[in-house]
Amino acid sequence: MTDRPIDVLDKAKGKKVMIKLKNGEEVTGTLKALDLHLNLWLEEAEVSKSDVKIRLGNILVRGDTIVYASPV
Amino acid sequence: MTDRPIDVLDKAKGKKVMIKLKNGEEVTGTLKALDLHLNLWLEEAEVSKSDVKIRLGNILVRGDTIVYASPV
Amino acid sequence: MTDRPIDVLDKAKGKKVMIKLKNGEEVTGTLKALDLHLNLWLEEAEVSKSDVKIRLGNILVRGDTIVYASPV
Amino acid sequence: MTDRPIDVLDKAKGKKVMIKLKNGEEVTGTLKALDLHLNLWLEEAEVSKSDVKIRLGNILVRGDTIVYASPV
Amino acid sequence: MTDRPIDVLDKAKGKKVMIKLKNGEEVTGTLKALDLHLNLWLEEAEVSKSDVKIRLGNILVRGDTIVYASPV
Amino acid sequence: MTDRPIDVLDKAKGKKVMIKLKNGEEVTGTLKALDLHLNLWLEEAEVSKSDVKIRLGNILVRGDTIVYASPV
Amino acid sequence: MTDRPIDVLDKAKGKKVMIKLKNGEEVTGTLKALDLHLNLWLEEAEVSKSDVKIRLGNILVRGDTIVYASPV
Repeated sequence: MTDRPIDVLDKAKGKKVMIKLKNGEEVTGTLKALDLHLNLWLEEAEVSKSDVKIRLGNILVRGDTIVYASPV
Repeated sequence: MTDRPIDVLDKAKGKKVMIKLKNGEEVTGTLKALDLHLNLWLEEAEVSKSDVKIRLGNILVRGDTIVYASPV
Repeated sequence: MTDRPIDVLDKAKGKKVMIKLKNGEEVTGTLKALDLHLNLWLEEAEVSKSDVKIRLGNILVRGDTIVYASPV
Repeated sequence: MTDRPIDVLDKAKGKKVMIKLKNGEEVTGTLKALDLHLNLWLEEAEVSKSDVKIRLGNILVRGDTIVYASPV
Repeated sequence: MTDRPIDVLDKAKGKKVMIKLKNGEEVTGTLKALDLHLNLWLEEAEVSKSDVKIRLGNILVRGDTIVYASPV
Repeated sequence: MTDRPIDVLDKAKGKKVMIKLKNGEEVTGTLKALDLHLNLWLEEAEVSKSDVKIRLGNILVRGDTIVYASPV
Repeated sequence: MTDRPIDVLDKAKGKKVMIKLKNGEEVTGTLKALDLHLNLWLEEAEVSKSDVKIRLGNILVRGDTIVYASPV
């Protein structure tokens, strides 16, 4: 309960997360690394917008483009 | 009365809050953790836009995407 | 006259204020707390956009979403 | 000539100024206080957009919403 | 050649400059003062958008609204 | 696993990467240098938007315009 | 290879560069000076948007309006 929000996300490392971006896209992938700016490194990532889905493999998501992140 | 605004939100931990986001979405959920950037960790979260509502479970909401937060 | 702008708003604590937000919404409520980032805590708050008005009770308004604030 | 731009605005205290905001609105009023972030406190303020003009009395204008400020 | 970009603008003080703003407006005027944030103080300023031109006299232009500045 | 996200991108130096920008454009090229702001230097870069593709050769991409970066 | 991205742009001083701006405009000119914020000073600059091209002579481009910069 006294964890910081980012600590809770840190515990999701190795698990699949869904990231909502400010440009409306959604990224899903396995969370491998994160930093205090909320920059994320995902593996086996897919990006989707409307009904289009694109496989990207490894991806660095810039923290300031994130609206929310949720373990799937 | 001399509390900072964020201290007052801190007292809402464990309770349900409604978050209005800059992208027009609304998030409701149980507030579990927050930090000075207003990053929030919610449980049993739902995101709604217009008439569409999506259950997300646990969610980290990035502070700089928040317009306002209100205990429900 | 040598007050900082935020000091003048500080004197409005306990009074009703109207807040114009960058997303076009207006929030009115009783100002209970503020900090140097202009984060505000309002009680008995109402949010209105166009002709729709919603009662929200207590609300934390993030400072960087504010265009102007005016004691009513 | 060696004044900083903000010093020159500081000399307009007590006088009427016109403020252009990033959301397209214009605010006019008597400048009473300003700080280094360009937060302004105006009295007898009016806000206008297109052809609509609203009297607001005292108003704190957040500095990061300002495009330019001009003594009238 | 080893001047910083802002030093080069500093040498334009007393001369007429054209400023392009992020909101699409253009401001022309005589540059009287500038600071490290690129806040500018202009005299005999005119603001134009599309085909409309407005005389504003003295004007403080906030640095973070500027796209580029060019001595005329 | 304890790498920071930016360290993982650093290992992609010398390889081809795809960069998604906030303005909707995509840049591909060989990553030659990066810094902590996520500013990138690419060689043999191409910029594409919708169906238009432009060869640019060497390019400095400003970090704060990046949504995500992915080794190809 | 161990240069920072900005060092690589620094080596383009005296040469012609093309700058893509966040407002969609493109600026070309001879790079004369730059700083760590990526503020640039160009000579013999031209600004183009869609099919319109305007000669501006000397120009200070604010770094935070830049998407990418490429030696021509």
